Amino acid sequence: MWCDRIVTNTRLIDLRSDTVTAPDEAMRVAMARAEVGDDVLDRDPTMRRLEERVADVLGVEAALWVPSGSMGNMIALTAHLSRGEKFIASRGAHVLDSELGAAAWLSGGMPEAVDWGDRPGHLPVEAVRGAGGATGPYYALRTTLLCLENTHNAAGGVVTPPDEHAKLVATARDIGLRVHLDGARLWNASVALEVPPAALTVGVDTVQVCLSKGLGAPVGSLVAGTAAFVEEARRLRKMLGGGVRQGGVLAAAGLIAIDRIPALATDHANAATLAAGLASLGWEVGTPETNIVLAATPDAGATLEALRRVGVLAVPMLGRVRFIAHRDVSAADITEVLDRIAGIGR
Amino acid sequence: MWCDRIVTNTRLIDLRSDTVTAPDEAMRVAMARAEVGDDVLDRDPTMRRLEERVADVLGVEAALWVPSGSMGNMIALTAHLSRGEKFIASRGAHVLDSELGAAAWLSGGMPEAVDWGDRPGHLPVEAVRGAGGATGPYYALRTTLLCLENTHNAAGGVVTPPDEHAKLVATARDIGLRVHLDGARLWNASVALEVPPAALTVGVDTVQVCLSKGLGAPVGSLVAGTAAFVEEARRLRKMLGGGVRQGGVLAAAGLIAIDRIPALATDHANAATLAAGLASLGWEVGTPETNIVLAATPDAGATLEALRRVGVLAVPMLGRVRFIAHRDVSAADITEVLDRIAGIGR
Amino acid sequence: MWCDRIVTNTRLIDLRSDTVTAPDEAMRVAMARAEVGDDVLDRDPTMRRLEERVADVLGVEAALWVPSGSMGNMIALTAHLSRGEKFIASRGAHVLDSELGAAAWLSGGMPEAVDWGDRPGHLPVEAVRGAGGATGPYYALRTTLLCLENTHNAAGGVVTPPDEHAKLVATARDIGLRVHLDGARLWNASVALEVPPAALTVGVDTVQVCLSKGLGAPVGSLVAGTAAFVEEARRLRKMLGGGVRQGGVLAAAGLIAIDRIPALATDHANAATLAAGLASLGWEVGTPETNIVLAATPDAGATLEALRRVGVLAVPMLGRVRFIAHRDVSAADITEVLDRIAGIGR
Amino acid sequence: MWCDRIVTNTRLIDLRSDTVTAPDEAMRVAMARAEVGDDVLDRDPTMRRLEERVADVLGVEAALWVPSGSMGNMIALTAHLSRGEKFIASRGAHVLDSELGAAAWLSGGMPEAVDWGDRPGHLPVEAVRGAGGATGPYYALRTTLLCLENTHNAAGGVVTPPDEHAKLVATARDIGLRVHLDGARLWNASVALEVPPAALTVGVDTVQVCLSKGLGAPVGSLVAGTAAFVEEARRLRKMLGGGVRQGGVLAAAGLIAIDRIPALATDHANAATLAAGLASLGWEVGTPETNIVLAATPDAGATLEALRRVGVLAVPMLGRVRFIAHRDVSAADITEVLDRIAGIGR
Repeated sequence: MWCDRIVTNTRLIDLRSDTVTAPDEAMRVAMARAEVGDDVLDRDPTMRRLEERVADVLGVEAALWVPSGSMGNMIALTAHLSRGEKFIASRGAHVLDSELGAAAWLSGGMPEAVDWGDRPGHLPVEAVRGAGGATGPYYALRTTLLCLENTHNAAGGVVTPPDEHAKLVATARDIGLRVHLDGARLWNASVALEVPPAALTVGVDTVQVCLSKGLGAPVGSLVAGTAAFVEEARRLRKMLGGGVRQGGVLAAAGLIAIDRIPALATDHANAATLAAGLASLGWEVGTPETNIVLAATPDAGATLEALRRVGVLAVPMLGRVRFIAHRDVSAADITEVLDRIAGIGR
Repeated sequence: MWCDRIVTNTRLIDLRSDTVTAPDEAMRVAMARAEVGDDVLDRDPTMRRLEERVADVLGVEAALWVPSGSMGNMIALTAHLSRGEKFIASRGAHVLDSELGAAAWLSGGMPEAVDWGDRPGHLPVEAVRGAGGATGPYYALRTTLLCLENTHNAAGGVVTPPDEHAKLVATARDIGLRVHLDGARLWNASVALEVPPAALTVGVDTVQVCLSKGLGAPVGSLVAGTAAFVEEARRLRKMLGGGVRQGGVLAAAGLIAIDRIPALATDHANAATLAAGLASLGWEVGTPETNIVLAATPDAGATLEALRRVGVLAVPMLGRVRFIAHRDVSAADITEVLDRIAGIGR
Repeated sequence: MWCDRIVTNTRLIDLRSDTVTAPDEAMRVAMARAEVGDDVLDRDPTMRRLEERVADVLGVEAALWVPSGSMGNMIALTAHLSRGEKFIASRGAHVLDSELGAAAWLSGGMPEAVDWGDRPGHLPVEAVRGAGGATGPYYALRTTLLCLENTHNAAGGVVTPPDEHAKLVATARDIGLRVHLDGARLWNASVALEVPPAALTVGVDTVQVCLSKGLGAPVGSLVAGTAAFVEEARRLRKMLGGGVRQGGVLAAAGLIAIDRIPALATDHANAATLAAGLASLGWEVGTPETNIVLAATPDAGATLEALRRVGVLAVPMLGRVRFIAHRDVSAADITEVLDRIAGIGR
Repeated sequence: MWCDRIVTNTRLIDLRSDTVTAPDEAMRVAMARAEVGDDVLDRDPTMRRLEERVADVLGVEAALWVPSGSMGNMIALTAHLSRGEKFIASRGAHVLDSELGAAAWLSGGMPEAVDWGDRPGHLPVEAVRGAGGATGPYYALRTTLLCLENTHNAAGGVVTPPDEHAKLVATARDIGLRVHLDGARLWNASVALEVPPAALTVGVDTVQVCLSKGLGAPVGSLVAGTAAFVEEARRLRKMLGGGVRQGGVLAAAGLIAIDRIPALATDHANAATLAAGLASLGWEVGTPETNIVLAATPDAGATLEALRRVGVLAVPMLGRVRFIAHRDVSAADITEVLDRIAGIGR
C-alpha cells in the first residue's frame, strides 16, 4: 500500500509530505539543552517562550502548544461549536476529510462542505453568505462557524491573500459566524505572499499552525486566539490527553523552527522546478503556489506504483498525485526525481 | 415569520406540510378504545400489533414505534455509525439539513452530502461508488453508510423507483456500506410508483416510515430492520427518551393510518392540479411526482408573505416555495388556493 | 425474568410500577375530543394549555411536554452540563442508575453518586458542600450541578420536605451549582407533605414531572424552568426526536391527570395498608411515606418468583422487593395481595 | 494557589509529583541522537523499538506510545465502552477524578465509583461482583468494564499484589467484564512487590503505563494490549490528536526510562524516611508502600501554605497532604525537608 515503509536499493526520495522532515543538528542540540519544567503544573519555561513567540508572530493574544495540528483544530472546533450548530469548510478541507471525522465526534457540530468556486481551494464569498447564519425557526440547524484553510492542501497548496481573507472574514462576521483558520501551512502562504503571518490571521477567532511540517520540528503545533480561548483550550487539551510534562524539549525545536519560516522559499522554488519539469515530460500539472505539486493522472494508483519502483514517494490526493517539496529534499534531489521519472513515462 | 401561527379573517389553507393533518373521527374513536399496556415493561398490545403490521408491510423482520421520524433516523444512524466513520446522503437530505445536526452529535459519524446528478433528488450511482468504502490507511476516515431518502423532500417529493433503488443498494453493498432509508414519505413513493412499499426497501438494513404526515395519525413513526437491530433500537429509544408507557392510544391511530396508504393518490392528484394551475398562472413549477410542489420564485420570502396575506400557507425550501397537498386539503381547497393566488400574481 | 409478560389463571395484581396505570374513560373521551395542531410548526393548542397549566402548578415560568421523564431529565442535564463538568446525585438516583447511562452519553458531564446520610434517600448538606464547586486549578474537574429526586424512588418513595429542600438548594447555590429536580413523583411528595408542588421547586433551575405514573395519563412528562431554558429545551427535544405533531391528544389526558393529584392520597393509604400487612406477616418492611413499599428479603429473586406464582407482580430494587400502589389497584386488591402472600410465607 | 509557580529565596524542594522529574543528561543525549521517521506515515523506528520493548516488559502483544497517561486511559475506555454501558473504578481513581471527566465525554459510558473496603485503595472482590454485569432487562444499564489502578494514587500509592490482582480479574471475567489497568505507577508496584511488571498485568485487556513520572522521561505514556486493540488505539490516537511525527526523540528518552525501573527503590526508601520523620514530628501519617506519603492534617490548605513558606511543595489529596518522592529529590533533600518542617510544626 502506498503508505507502507519501503525499502529498495535505490535511495528513496520522499515527497509524500513535509511532515517527514527530520530535526537537524541545531534542533537536536537545542532540545538537549532545553530548560524544562512541568507544563501541566507550572508551565514549562521553554514552552512558555514558544507560545509567546508564536502568539506574537501570529498577532494574537495567546497560543497553546499541542501535540498535533489535528488536536489544535479539534480544540478550536470543540470550543466554538455545540450540538445543533453547523460549521462550513471548503470541499477537501483537512478538518472534513483528513482527521477521521473527529470534528463531528468531538465538537458535536454538523459539518458541511462548501464547493470551491472557479478557482480550486478558494471559497466564494457568496457561498459563505449563502450558508446562512444562526437565524431561522427554533428547529433549524444554525450555522455558526467558518473554517478556513491557508494554504489549502487538497487544492494543491494554494494561498489565500490578505484581501480575499479579509472579505471572507467580513462576510462570516456579517452573518454571525466565528472563524477558525487551519494554518497548518500558513507559513508557506506568508512566504509566498511576502506578507507577515499576522496579515493572514486578521479577524479570525482562532488559528492553528504547525511546527513539524516544512519547518522541520519533530513534534507539535499551536492553536492560538484570545487569552480566554487559550484558557479554555488548555482545559480541552488536558481532556483530550495533550497535556505533557517537560514539553520544553520539543518547544526548543519549535523556537528554531519559527526562525526558519523564510527558508520555505527554497521549498517553493523546488516545487516550481518539479512542476515545470513534470510539465516538460508531458504531465498535466499546474503552477504551484507554494510547496505542493498536484499532477493529474489517468490512474493515480498505477502512477504511484511506478514512481515507487524508481524510488520516488508521493501520495494520492482526490484522484491526483501529490508531491511536496520540503527541507530534506534538495534542488539536486528534485533533478534526480525528474531524471528518474523521465525514465518511466507517466 | 413564516412559521408563526397566523390568524386572519380569511380561512387559512395550510399547505406548509402534510404533518399538519389532524386525526379524524375514526382515528379518535380507535384511540379512545385502544387496548393498552406498559410498553416499556411488557410491550403494549396495540403497539405490538402496529409494529408487526408495519414490519410486514415493509417486508422486514421487525419494527419499532418512535415518537418522531427524526428519532427513527437518529436511532438507525447511531446504531450503524461510530466515530471514525463517514455516512453519505444526498444534498438536502433530511438527516443532513433538517434534524439540527443531531446525526453528527448522536452518532459520532461524519456526514457528507453527495451532489445530485442531472436529476434533482437522485443520487448518481458513480457518486456512491466514488465515496469510497472502509479501505485506506489506518488514519483515513472510513465511509460505512449510505442514507437514502424516498421520496426526496428537498427535491420536491421525487420518487426513486425499485430498479434505481436496487442499483444504489447494490453499489453500496459492493463497497461495503450499510444502507438506511429515510422513508418518511415512502408511502407516497409506493402509491406513485404503484408498487408495494416492500418493493422499495429491498436490500436496506433499516428504514424509517412516518404515520403522522400524509396518513394523518397524530404522532409517531417506525424504524424497522432485522430483529437484532430492533432489539438494539429499543435500547437506544429508551436512552433518547422515546420509551413511552400506554402508547397503544397512539398505535391505534397508526393502524388506521396504515390502511390509508392508497388514499394518498388523492393528494398526488391535488398536487398535480395545483402545479398545473400555478404554471398556467405563469409560475415556474415542475410536474410533481407525489404530493409536493416546488415553485421557483425570485424572492421566496416575499412570495410567502404575499401568499400568507391571502390565507395560503407554504414554506421556503432551498430558495424555492414548497406546497404540500394532504388529506386535510380538498380538491375544492386547491381550486380556492389557485383563485386566491390568481388575485395576487406571483 | 421478572419483566416478562406473565399469563396465569389467577388474576394478576400488578404492583411493579405506577407506570402500568391505564387511561380511564374520562381521559379517553378527552383525548378523542382534543383540539389539536402541529406542535412543531405552531404549538398544539392543547399542549400549550397543558404546558401553561403545569408551569403554573410548579411555580416556574414555562414548561415543555416530553414523551418521557427520561427525556425530560436528559434535556435538563444536557442543557446544564458540558464536558469537564461533574454533576452529583444521590446514590440510586434515577438519572444515575435507571436511564442507561444516557446522562454521561448525552450531556458529556461526569456523574458522581453521593452517599445517603443516616436517612435513606436523603442527601446530607455537608456531602453536597464537600462535592466542591467549580474552583481549583485549570486541570480539575468542576462540579456544576446538583440533581435532586423527590420522592426518591430507590430509597422507597421518601419525601424531602420544603425546609430540607431549601437547605440543599441554598448549599448548592453557595458553591455555585445549578439544581435540577427529578420530580417524576413530585406529586406524591406534595400530597404526602400537604404542600403545593410549587413549595418543592423553590430555587431549582429545572424540574421534571411525570403524567404517566400515579396520575394515569398514558404518555408524557414535562420539563420546566425559565422561559429561556424552555426555549433551549425545545431545540434539544427536537434533536433527541421528541418533537411530536398533534400531541394535543396526549396533552388532553395530561390536563385531566393534573386534576387528579389529590387522589394520590388513596395510593399512599393503600401502600400503608400493604406495608402494615406485610409487617404483620413477618416481613421486614419500613413505613412508606408515599406509594412505594420496599421489603427486605434474603433472596429477592426467589421472593419475586414466589409472588409471581400467586399472581402478584413486584420488582427488585437494590436487593429488596419493591411494590408500588397506584390508581389501578384498589384497597380490596391490597387485601387480596396480603391474603395471597399469607399463603406463601416470605 | 498551591499549583502556582513559586519563587522564594529558599531553594524549593518539589514533592508535588513525580511528574516534575526532568530528563537527565543521558536522556538528553539519547534524544539528540535518536533515529527518527514519520510515525504517522511509517512508524518512527525508535518509537517502534520503545513500543516493542514496553509490550515485552508488560507481557502483552503490543503497545502504543501516547503523549500522556490520560490519553492512554481515554483510548482504552473509548475502545472498551459504548453508550448504555457502565464501568466501575475504585473511589478516587484517576480516571474518575483527575481527567476532567473525559471518560464520560469521550467513551459515552457511565462511570461508577466503588467504595474501598477495609483497606484504602483496595477494591473488595464482592463489590466488583455486586456491580453486576451485562444481564438484566433491555432497559438496564449494563456494567461491562472494570478499571483497576496500581499503584493507587489517591489512596497513597498502595500496591495490589499479584494474587489480589488475579482474584479481581477473575471476578470481573466471571461476570463478563473487560479489565483496564491504569498502571501510571505500575513500575513502582513492581519494584515494591519485587515481581516483574508482567506479573501485575495478568488477564487484563489493556494497561496504561507512564514514562514521565518516576522514570524521568520528559513526555509520554503507553497503552498496551492485544495487537487488535493497538490497531484500534492507533486510530483513536489520531482522532484525539495524539499522532505525532518524529516521536523518536521522545521514545529515545523512554527507552532509557524503562531501564531505570529498579532505581525506583530509592524513591521508596526516601518516602519511607520522610514518613518516619513526619511521624516522629507528630504528624499522622501511614507507612508508605511506594513513593507516595499521605499525611492527615486538620486543614490541608493551611498546612500546604506553611510548607510553601519554607520552600517545600506538596499538594492536597482528598483532604490530606500528598508528598511524592522522586529521582530529582535526594536522601539529603528529604533530610532537609524534615529539618524545615521541624521548624514550623504542623
